[in-house]
Amino acid sequence: MPALPLAKRLPTLDGIVAAHAELRARRPLVQCLTNVVSANFMANVLLAAGASPAMVDNPEEAAGFAKVAGAVLVNLGTPTSAQVESMRLAVQAANAAGRPWVLDPIGAGGLPWRGAVAAELLRQNPSVVRGNASEIIGLAGLGEGAPGFDSSDDPAQAVPAAVELLRQCQAVSASGPVDHVLGWVGDSADSAVPRLLRIGGGSALLPRVTASGCALGALVAAYLAVSEDAFTALSAAHVHFAVASELAEEGSRGPGTFAALFLDALDAVDAELIRQRAQLMPEQAGA
Amino acid sequence: MPALPLAKRLPTLDGIVAAHAELRARRPLVQCLTNVVSANFMANVLLAAGASPAMVDNPEEAAGFAKVAGAVLVNLGTPTSAQVESMRLAVQAANAAGRPWVLDPIGAGGLPWRGAVAAELLRQNPSVVRGNASEIIGLAGLGEGAPGFDSSDDPAQAVPAAVELLRQCQAVSASGPVDHVLGWVGDSADSAVPRLLRIGGGSALLPRVTASGCALGALVAAYLAVSEDAFTALSAAHVHFAVASELAEEGSRGPGTFAALFLDALDAVDAELIRQRAQLMPEQAGA
Amino acid sequence: MPALPLAKRLPTLDGIVAAHAELRARRPLVQCLTNVVSANFMANVLLAAGASPAMVDNPEEAAGFAKVAGAVLVNLGTPTSAQVESMRLAVQAANAAGRPWVLDPIGAGGLPWRGAVAAELLRQNPSVVRGNASEIIGLAGLGEGAPGFDSSDDPAQAVPAAVELLRQCQAVSASGPVDHVLGWVGDSADSAVPRLLRIGGGSALLPRVTASGCALGALVAAYLAVSEDAFTALSAAHVHFAVASELAEEGSRGPGTFAALFLDALDAVDAELIRQRAQLMPEQAGA
Repeated sequence: MPALPLAKRLPTLDGIVAAHAELRARRPLVQCLTNVVSANFMANVLLAAGASPAMVDNPEEAAGFAKVAGAVLVNLGTPTSAQVESMRLAVQAANAAGRPWVLDPIGAGGLPWRGAVAAELLRQNPSVVRGNASEIIGLAGLGEGAPGFDSSDDPAQAVPAAVELLRQCQAVSASGPVDHVLGWVGDSADSAVPRLLRIGGGSALLPRVTASGCALGALVAAYLAVSEDAFTALSAAHVHFAVASELAEEGSRGPGTFAALFLDALDAVDAELIRQRAQLMPEQAGA
Repeated sequence: MPALPLAKRLPTLDGIVAAHAELRARRPLVQCLTNVVSANFMANVLLAAGASPAMVDNPEEAAGFAKVAGAVLVNLGTPTSAQVESMRLAVQAANAAGRPWVLDPIGAGGLPWRGAVAAELLRQNPSVVRGNASEIIGLAGLGEGAPGFDSSDDPAQAVPAAVELLRQCQAVSASGPVDHVLGWVGDSADSAVPRLLRIGGGSALLPRVTASGCALGALVAAYLAVSEDAFTALSAAHVHFAVASELAEEGSRGPGTFAALFLDALDAVDAELIRQRAQLMPEQAGA
Repeated sequence: MPALPLAKRLPTLDGIVAAHAELRARRPLVQCLTNVVSANFMANVLLAAGASPAMVDNPEEAAGFAKVAGAVLVNLGTPTSAQVESMRLAVQAANAAGRPWVLDPIGAGGLPWRGAVAAELLRQNPSVVRGNASEIIGLAGLGEGAPGFDSSDDPAQAVPAAVELLRQCQAVSASGPVDHVLGWVGDSADSAVPRLLRIGGGSALLPRVTASGCALGALVAAYLAVSEDAFTALSAAHVHFAVASELAEEGSRGPGTFAALFLDALDAVDAELIRQRAQLMPEQAGA
């Protein structure tokens, strides 16, 4: 049984503003099992955006913590065998406790060992899968993944793969110049269909900051902990990132100052800025 | 036998200024066994403040390095089983060599496995225990710890727990809006009594930067390596942090720019700034 | 057989400018097996400078990835036993596939266990060895290493040790106020001789940022992936760092703002800035 109810409609600006208000009001505890490159930046992103990070990722504690966390992020950036064991335990505990969780399949498709781990975790039905286009295509088994961690594919090309992944989860996104966010929409599981929401804006400097995609995955988990449905949570996190990165770019002189200003901007984003700047482009997803 | 002599009086402004001068003159080597979130920021904090960091935390090297380090920090933020083994070895070696060490019991009280590790390490008599109020209360076994890593308790409420922990160490602090620092004071071990020094100032942005508390623990270790007593060392580190965070807040626009300016300010703090801005509020500790 | 051809002459300004143009044009994929302190900053340095980082360092994936990476960095900053196993596998695979790789022997000389690991890796013939003076001297077995990770030796004193290390590799550098870069130069392996290129400039703030030396090692790997010879690649990375750190210092207020501006500057460095600011001081190396 999914942790969150089915989305009854495509995410709206009002729904995203409401999710943001909930995030700030409830400051959800997010358990992150993530890679060594991202840990510090991810925690700072969660703190700046309004959540509470906890990087509990050892096998001794991962399951126990997943029961009390608001949501769980599983990121495959630099997996060790102990961490993979922790991921299995955390996911199992999250599912048993009805906690939502995010799978971020970094590098899946290009690396066979972690590809198998990602496929195994996918079968445990994450609430959300988030990745770049190459990773979404690779995880769905619809193409060869890129050997690196930077996507060489356009997110639009990942839509069929995202639809495929929706068999296992409630919502999927492929990050890129225009983010492509897909989720189930309907009044009941029987009548639900996959829908696509494209989200524009953002900054070309964001992918110049390492682990920015990873940190987005963690923010998705934070929104899952406070949102009414997974599709809205995923869209709200993308919008929060896009608006903040636009604000940060305005004052930055390059990728280093951008990263600092981005944290400032994640904190500064409020309902008014979301309403002024969010670029939501809803479409019907192909089936 | 403790690594440092007993404090003969409550820490004074003159004593803190002298400790800061020693830090800058001697640039102590600090061995950090710490969590993955904090490692980079902690090393930068030590470098900016005037110490020399070394993150030697594998079982093969931890004990050997503890013998030559000026002081050792043990932080339980994201412990792996190998790292816990390294902590045991480093603490044993530090004690044997008469080197001071700090225990930072992140998450102890809220997580049973690491709580047991923290309790075991506490029995090895750290020079100092530093944590937030929830962690100090949790480690002393005087209450339920919070599930997360942000303290929900006022440091004043942690004073009885800190007094309890003083059975095992020379000084204890609970960080918060007003830091509560406790230590033994007397002319001899028989006549010594626990005393409280509250330290004000600081910035509300500091807890918005992940691992800022962890980095404070490392700076405590740096001061232990150069101070005349553990109570003064612990107080000097808190003052250095409070003054620097005030300076940083003045120029910052949010948590991201604050973090960069905080490193600048740790470097800029000198005797004059300490004398102008340190807020020392001595009190008699309750027994 | 070395991954790159022998340098026919000392690196020149034209050659360094050409290597920089190749870096920007080809954006090489760099596999980093590195320490926990450096991972985030190193990845950001590579992204800012114009390369693509991938921190693949587990035993399951390290060898497979080394075959497709443009170059490999092996950094001994905080080695775990699993990571050392990964290093062995990655180096073996890189050698078999003719991929260049860098050995950064952090702390070698001061710590026996990792010193033995470093010596073992050295026997696998890295393309380049990069370290501070203490590490170069320690790895060559020509003196006692310092216990810490900050060099207490002048790079000029490391020249004999660097010449010794050239038995195992194509180029060696010792970082310091004036970087000392050595490499084989000649028309054939039989007639080649070790030559020295000193590189000035830079900023005293750079060593106040943790992992700046580690990140330089990763940038060396990036340049190895696109350069005509290892000596030029190593020199180009040093020049890129020196010019960027000068630019960063001009706008900085301390080590924190410097670190952010340094990333901006790595991005901003172009052919014109290199030609204006590079300080190349060629000399004949002693034999």
